[in-house]
Amino acid sequence: MAKPFSFKVLATDGRARRGIIDMPRGEIRTPAFMPVGTGGTVKTMYMDQVRGVGADIILGNTYHLMLRPGAERVARLGGLHEFARWPHPILTDSGGFQVMSLSKLRKLTEKGVTFRSHIDGAPYEMSPERSIEIQSLLDSDIQMQLDECTALPAELKEIERAMELSLRWAERCKTAFGDQPGKAMFGIVQGGDNAALRVRSAQALSAMGLKGYAVGGLAVGEPQAVMLEMLDITCPELPADKPRYLMGVGTPDDILKSVARGIDMFDCVMPTRAGRHGLAYTRRGKVNLRNARHADDPRPLDEESDCPAARDYSRAYLHHLVRSQEALGAMLLTWNNLSYYQKLMQDIRAAIETQTFEARGAEITEGWARGDIPVL
Amino acid sequence: MAKPFSFKVLATDGRARRGIIDMPRGEIRTPAFMPVGTGGTVKTMYMDQVRGVGADIILGNTYHLMLRPGAERVARLGGLHEFARWPHPILTDSGGFQVMSLSKLRKLTEKGVTFRSHIDGAPYEMSPERSIEIQSLLDSDIQMQLDECTALPAELKEIERAMELSLRWAERCKTAFGDQPGKAMFGIVQGGDNAALRVRSAQALSAMGLKGYAVGGLAVGEPQAVMLEMLDITCPELPADKPRYLMGVGTPDDILKSVARGIDMFDCVMPTRAGRHGLAYTRRGKVNLRNARHADDPRPLDEESDCPAARDYSRAYLHHLVRSQEALGAMLLTWNNLSYYQKLMQDIRAAIETQTFEARGAEITEGWARGDIPVL
Repeated sequence: MAKPFSFKVLATDGRARRGIIDMPRGEIRTPAFMPVGTGGTVKTMYMDQVRGVGADIILGNTYHLMLRPGAERVARLGGLHEFARWPHPILTDSGGFQVMSLSKLRKLTEKGVTFRSHIDGAPYEMSPERSIEIQSLLDSDIQMQLDECTALPAELKEIERAMELSLRWAERCKTAFGDQPGKAMFGIVQGGDNAALRVRSAQALSAMGLKGYAVGGLAVGEPQAVMLEMLDITCPELPADKPRYLMGVGTPDDILKSVARGIDMFDCVMPTRAGRHGLAYTRRGKVNLRNARHADDPRPLDEESDCPAARDYSRAYLHHLVRSQEALGAMLLTWNNLSYYQKLMQDIRAAIETQTFEARGAEITEGWARGDIPVL
Repeated sequence: MAKPFSFKVLATDGRARRGIIDMPRGEIRTPAFMPVGTGGTVKTMYMDQVRGVGADIILGNTYHLMLRPGAERVARLGGLHEFARWPHPILTDSGGFQVMSLSKLRKLTEKGVTFRSHIDGAPYEMSPERSIEIQSLLDSDIQMQLDECTALPAELKEIERAMELSLRWAERCKTAFGDQPGKAMFGIVQGGDNAALRVRSAQALSAMGLKGYAVGGLAVGEPQAVMLEMLDITCPELPADKPRYLMGVGTPDDILKSVARGIDMFDCVMPTRAGRHGLAYTRRGKVNLRNARHADDPRPLDEESDCPAARDYSRAYLHHLVRSQEALGAMLLTWNNLSYYQKLMQDIRAAIETQTFEARGAEITEGWARGDIPVL
């Protein structure tokens, strides 16, 4: 029998947790950052580079994959791991978030959502059961419940309605997922920016005894302070022995502050998207390679980095590639950014282990605030 | 003192030649194919991949580099090899071809060309002397004379005028280049599709005692038979102990047939450009990955290839990447294509060494004609 999905907290420092998720396809060191592999590829990256920078798990988008190439097709081809050549754990979202944000002519009922593809207008149905079916066809290791995420700001009534619907859908997803020891299905806490609704959602989900819990519906337009307040309220309501995943977050600063509140897992398009727009994340903050100040700069982005993209190419060359819209510019900056994010997670994990998380976090934050390394 | 530029013919088979160019930055095994690194990058490729598939030399475009990032800037940054992280030989064209085809408001006189950048409209002057100066600022190992290339079909008078101008510019380039033992400046045979003009050009250039000779102004719209006829006429007029470079050519079939006529060096955007348009070069001909027949095909492009792009990814995945316009699709197909071109050159070189060039060429051609590997 396959090794069952398990989560163990190895160390804590304040509310920050250093843990490990173990499952048949591999271990996930937490706090973990999951690079986003939307359509079966982490944009501009070879999978061995993604692994090489230290990612234990990547995220796949159910909505994109169900439209193209199609979940049944991926299943026939041996599943998403085989298809995309990533043999390690994969988490898939439910598809719900993109159905709401990208699709056309969507109609939401208790049963589920009908919508049309943003690519070719083809009609689709999505329900809690179909979402889990698709995620299982993809052979996803960590599957997410279908939920309804409310963009903020929103009316309280609307937030509550979506949260309650999401709870009912969580039950249906749990039933649809059934008993799969080597895999996990996570519930998603909703409730917008309302503390009482967040508590209600977290408690109701906790009572379902799921293998992990996500916090959804944050970083959707509200100030960071609101997001952190919601985490302060939500995390204590979730079982301490289950992983907590903050969906779609965020900046390095968001991550530091969310780990401090007990979050174990993150995903975000920022490092990959920024890399395609000439932006580099570094220990000295975000650097815009389009800026003319780099045009004659022979120094690398960061000579102390282990990542070839940060260490071996001049800023002048990166600037030239970005200005010329050369693919290699996006390739190198994405590589740098994912490397930086993984390095950040590694630093965070090491600091929690040695009970120095707060001090290390302050050091890291100070590094960003100092601004880019000056030319001597 | 640096090792001087040298060329040695190691073996011949009919008119085909197996040779070696030796120069301070490395050896070039001929017949050689030079991947095109237009603006200091072989599009979508890491330089270690370019080297890994077997390229001994790449080509840089003087026109693109003089506009962006600028030749003086590249020189300040240590030259093109340092800038682009390719420490091996680089050949640069003169810039003339792109000035004629890409720039705006160009005006050509005996002295040179004035034109405006296609990027920002900035005015530039190009002359034989400035072309060599730019190529030297780039620290190019093999530099090309400035010439005027006539698109075919064209009036005889016009072809002759451009050819004679190119001869006078060759003399000026030779003077400007001076005595640089470790580097080379090649002349360019022009003369369109006219045999007498080609002979006149080849003889006049040969009399200049240059280190190498290119055949230019072919593959510019004429049928392949005309190109081959011009090679039949031109190559015998060029000194046997100097390398011969057919500019901007071509398809694998063009290359086979041109090697058979005594050509030693090639460059072409086909493998890289095709890779960005969903096309794969294989030993079984050109394969269009956009085609729906690949959507469910778990087989790799060519399981017998040494190239990971051809061997390790399913056609279904490549099809998906191409259809989704994912960068990884262009990255993998370009890698495959450059690998295939280098494998072709390796086969050609081995066949000349063993005096089996004609038979091997027929085998290779038969492979293309058989069409794509069928599904069993």
